[in-house]
Amino acid sequence: MYKRVLSAALVLSCFGVWSPARADEGMWTFDAFPAAKVAAAYGFTPTPAFLDHVRASSLRIAGGCSASFVSSRGLVMTNHHCTLGCVSQLSTPAHNYVELGFYAKTEPEETKCPGFELDRLDAIEDVTKDVQGATAGKTGRALVDALQAKEGALALACGTSEAIRCDVVSLYHGGIFKLYHYKRYTDVRLAFAPEYAVGQFGGDPDNFNFPRFDYDCSFVRAYEDGKPAVTPEYLHWSKNGSKAGDLVFVSGNPGSTQRLLTVSELEYLRDVSFPRTLPNISELRGILERYQSESPEQLRQTKDLLFGLENGYKALFGREGALLDPAFFATKVAEERELRAEISRRPELAKTVGPAWDQLAAIEEKKKTLYYLTNYVAGGPNSASFRLARTLVRLPVEKAKPDAQRLPEFGEAKLVTLPQTLFARIPMYPGTEELELAFWAKKMREDLGTDDPFVKLVLGAKTPDVWAHDVVAGSTLGDPAVRKALYDGGAPAIAASTDTMIAFARTIDAASRAARKRYEDEVTGPESQFEEAIAKARFAVFGTTVYPDATFTARLSYGTVAGFVDGNGTTVPPYTTIAGLFARATGSEPYGLPPSWLAARSAIDPATAMNLSSTNDIIGGNSGSPLIDKNGDVVGLIFDGNIFSLGGAFGYEAAQNRAVAVDSRAILAGLRSVYHADRLVSEIAP
Amino acid sequence: MYKRVLSAALVLSCFGVWSPARADEGMWTFDAFPAAKVAAAYGFTPTPAFLDHVRASSLRIAGGCSASFVSSRGLVMTNHHCTLGCVSQLSTPAHNYVELGFYAKTEPEETKCPGFELDRLDAIEDVTKDVQGATAGKTGRALVDALQAKEGALALACGTSEAIRCDVVSLYHGGIFKLYHYKRYTDVRLAFAPEYAVGQFGGDPDNFNFPRFDYDCSFVRAYEDGKPAVTPEYLHWSKNGSKAGDLVFVSGNPGSTQRLLTVSELEYLRDVSFPRTLPNISELRGILERYQSESPEQLRQTKDLLFGLENGYKALFGREGALLDPAFFATKVAEERELRAEISRRPELAKTVGPAWDQLAAIEEKKKTLYYLTNYVAGGPNSASFRLARTLVRLPVEKAKPDAQRLPEFGEAKLVTLPQTLFARIPMYPGTEELELAFWAKKMREDLGTDDPFVKLVLGAKTPDVWAHDVVAGSTLGDPAVRKALYDGGAPAIAASTDTMIAFARTIDAASRAARKRYEDEVTGPESQFEEAIAKARFAVFGTTVYPDATFTARLSYGTVAGFVDGNGTTVPPYTTIAGLFARATGSEPYGLPPSWLAARSAIDPATAMNLSSTNDIIGGNSGSPLIDKNGDVVGLIFDGNIFSLGGAFGYEAAQNRAVAVDSRAILAGLRSVYHADRLVSEIAP
Repeated sequence: MYKRVLSAALVLSCFGVWSPARADEGMWTFDAFPAAKVAAAYGFTPTPAFLDHVRASSLRIAGGCSASFVSSRGLVMTNHHCTLGCVSQLSTPAHNYVELGFYAKTEPEETKCPGFELDRLDAIEDVTKDVQGATAGKTGRALVDALQAKEGALALACGTSEAIRCDVVSLYHGGIFKLYHYKRYTDVRLAFAPEYAVGQFGGDPDNFNFPRFDYDCSFVRAYEDGKPAVTPEYLHWSKNGSKAGDLVFVSGNPGSTQRLLTVSELEYLRDVSFPRTLPNISELRGILERYQSESPEQLRQTKDLLFGLENGYKALFGREGALLDPAFFATKVAEERELRAEISRRPELAKTVGPAWDQLAAIEEKKKTLYYLTNYVAGGPNSASFRLARTLVRLPVEKAKPDAQRLPEFGEAKLVTLPQTLFARIPMYPGTEELELAFWAKKMREDLGTDDPFVKLVLGAKTPDVWAHDVVAGSTLGDPAVRKALYDGGAPAIAASTDTMIAFARTIDAASRAARKRYEDEVTGPESQFEEAIAKARFAVFGTTVYPDATFTARLSYGTVAGFVDGNGTTVPPYTTIAGLFARATGSEPYGLPPSWLAARSAIDPATAMNLSSTNDIIGGNSGSPLIDKNGDVVGLIFDGNIFSLGGAFGYEAAQNRAVAVDSRAILAGLRSVYHADRLVSEIAP
Repeated sequence: MYKRVLSAALVLSCFGVWSPARADEGMWTFDAFPAAKVAAAYGFTPTPAFLDHVRASSLRIAGGCSASFVSSRGLVMTNHHCTLGCVSQLSTPAHNYVELGFYAKTEPEETKCPGFELDRLDAIEDVTKDVQGATAGKTGRALVDALQAKEGALALACGTSEAIRCDVVSLYHGGIFKLYHYKRYTDVRLAFAPEYAVGQFGGDPDNFNFPRFDYDCSFVRAYEDGKPAVTPEYLHWSKNGSKAGDLVFVSGNPGSTQRLLTVSELEYLRDVSFPRTLPNISELRGILERYQSESPEQLRQTKDLLFGLENGYKALFGREGALLDPAFFATKVAEERELRAEISRRPELAKTVGPAWDQLAAIEEKKKTLYYLTNYVAGGPNSASFRLARTLVRLPVEKAKPDAQRLPEFGEAKLVTLPQTLFARIPMYPGTEELELAFWAKKMREDLGTDDPFVKLVLGAKTPDVWAHDVVAGSTLGDPAVRKALYDGGAPAIAASTDTMIAFARTIDAASRAARKRYEDEVTGPESQFEEAIAKARFAVFGTTVYPDATFTARLSYGTVAGFVDGNGTTVPPYTTIAGLFARATGSEPYGLPPSWLAARSAIDPATAMNLSSTNDIIGGNSGSPLIDKNGDVVGLIFDGNIFSLGGAFGYEAAQNRAVAVDSRAILAGLRSVYHADRLVSEIAP
């Protein structure tokens, strides 16, 4: 449920932002970075060489994080919570790396992360004319289809392969289209991850809070042809770290902001989407909490799943809170009023754009009525094996169509990378799969009603629990060989399969496609058309002095190391210390330090900076981003924002919104004195 | 969490309603029933004799339901879900009456329900002058104290005893005060309850929905001196039942409406209370769902707890939905504007009442900042043993004070009935207690923060789970004899007790009392003062042509048997049939019929009316109310409202809001043909 809703939110995100940016505000693209503005404010000019170096050292993790090269031999720094999925997949009951941590003492011990992909942005090409030429004069479904066909063709022509990835990115919501060329690394191996207890110190209670004491770091290495990748562009380690007031940059891939939604779109989020989503996340969270308490093995199998739910809950709850704050919402209303006033002063613009707000408001009403249909019928369960089954069932059908007529996720360019996902050796646990399916079915029946034909189609006379058990018990999709055979066998193999998960995906496919099509025709299509009209008008008014909304692509933000004043009026300084970490450790989860840290206590200077806060404008997706000083050196590792950063989805608030990072000095002290990871230490800080 | 929030909602409920009532709208007191209006609309005049007869036959169940006498020998009809707590308490793993149902073939087999209390309203006395004399000229804390002292004194003077209960009821929010005299029945014995499967047929998915097929009925009997109570006033069973369009009455105790909250108070519910409450209910619901799946015994022990959570969730979600509906909310804004306009035309009123809206709005802001403090610190965990421990800890302290200075729940009049609650032989399950305590502690830490002094006071270095386990494992409060000893031993026994639950209640008592006092001083006190000012002004404008907001006291509503048009535009007829019940039975929970019904299928006319919908204006607390025809005879048993009834908390919407009842003909057919309960059949329908 929750992942689907997050991705639905992404649908809304491809906007430009409102008005000339305020101090330190902005998630800027590398090809339009406001260097002069930074120079004026901070007396330091980021040169093209500086920007190129940072870009070429930065990485995106396909699952939703950021990272960076920190050695010439492909060593990559990111967060512990960004490799947690991998660590969990490599773990077994006998070797529980989640609990015990992982350190490859020698290079050969570095272990491949299943399905892990790193992307390095190598070039940005402007394809605006090409795309706009293909869509000119089209509306509704025809517009969606034309755009999709053109984007697929451009990506394919770019030469997508196992080692290259090309994505068309819509910035300023159709104001500009760019083709992003990435180098792909698909052989990525785990080098170091700390114990969960210190990598997630403070757990959910401390998440999105500061002061903070979290060793949320991890290292992987990119390989090519079985050898460490050669990466001459990488970030050097700062000798002395940062201090309060220092200018710092964050290079990463912010996932999604909605700073330019119209008021009616924000109202939809506040009054429909959040109130319906949050209780469902909570219920599944409760089920998982209890499930974890039943056995250590169930805890192990679902640790990262629950982490994701808790993190997602808190982030969405914070966003809802921002929209429920009358003062904050009033600023959004005022922004819209101001833009409309600007537009009304330009008669040509006003004629074409004027009605778009009312048209969008009508679509939001439609979206509300289609909410459950879209969520359950188009969406389906949020389970790993169901997603695989759906892909396998749809693949031969889509492949048989001309490229331009396929569902976009089956475009020719995407098919190149599909096997990487499809055959990854990712453990799937029947218990977890059953939980997720049963929960989906139960909520579906609750929200669509027992008499709904789709509910009857799925459940027949079964209870959700029995149904989920049967579907999971009769499926062997957990075995990559089975998936390979179905993939190779194509349509006849799918039709003949008696795998119950495949059968379920087959059974609901017609209804699911119809519900998806209806949503695209009645919501996505017209919505993007009117959003685009507004975005173009805004673009005409403000030009490129503004940054585009986040789209999980490479961005650079600037700011300073700074504390803030919290909700109780207390001044929070920008640094915490290792001494603070030990003082906070009660010995009980999530405040229990692992034996490694307790043993090393006397070996680390307690005054060492642990975590820090800065004014950089970031959001989810920036996890794992390097925090970089004026020299382009690493002074920290972004892993979170404070509680005031959550409203950042809708607007940057300079006084209290803070990015939160692990200090580079703490990372090094831990590697050196706790883990004796000399091999890595000498590599990143020789 | 949820129960506390519901009772917090009750705090807000003591209002009069807005404007002269619309068709069929109103939960009227028996002493101000609009008989002339009914006569004008329906050509039938409810005479004083009719009203007296209905009132004297009606009952309130202290836990939150309604009921009625249906024989001269104290036989009482109510819902299955209103006796579910008792059935659950009487059940053991060996005799699971929840699953199997309960029928006392002979009178001696009728079994006492622990802590079950029935109240029959015998007289209503106007004490407005008395109360208003005591509070005249007072404001803030002094007003609260004076009101409390006077109410306690009036109740005590009324002669409260084991058999008499007197409550001062504030109607029209301080516009009128009445002293309600009740006859109490505390020896109440279970006579009949159907199997859960048919008593809750359709379970949570069908809850608050119609069409409906639910045998949600049960019978208990009031005893006096060990013999069936003599109850000459009782409702006779209708010979022929009802038909579409018939005039019908509902006599019961609607718990709480908030139809006269100001817009700022409604915004508080919509933007603060509901968004914070609903996810927490959901998370606990998830925990319990999984807990139930672990063993049949855990399922048995928590069945009514989960039922309550699910029911509460759906009701609150529906209320939130009503307030999130812009059209509905606009009617509330318009109502307020209109009232203020009326008041502004009366300069004397305007002078005193004018500022009250802004003052209330400021209090709502304060309430938001105190939300978590009030919820966690003043409230404490929602566990049966904690509530008992808190009562035992506070009792000797409060008893030592003069009556007028005590916490109101320890007033002299309340102490008379306290032992009934304190020593009831109610099973308490350590597993459930632990769940509830751990959940409370976990959310408290999440919402107040790890660094909060109260959080540290409670948890010390423990995790919420370990802490909860320790507190429950070291307590023997489940044993009524232990509670009796602590009660008898007074302050020294409490101080010396090593019971861990008592120790916990002792530890937090000072902080809890301080948080409660702060909330009363800064919110409850001034809030009721300004609410009262508005209510009096409204009263001055509209007088008694309007009904007071619901206060879980005896009310009569009128309406007709009628269907409605649902959200999809489908016309839903007012009756379902036994045939429909069998057609809906899939065999899987919650749509599985018990063997008794399957066996009796051919013995019941399938055309028999099963459930019905009517336009009566009801709300939670009305469960178990008799549905009565013009002759004063039983034609049904209220057990629910449809989905459109949920907004009824804030306003009556005539087109779709429907009450839902079990048809009297289905009740009788079941008793006769399924349960062969000849003893009861001959008693209610001789």
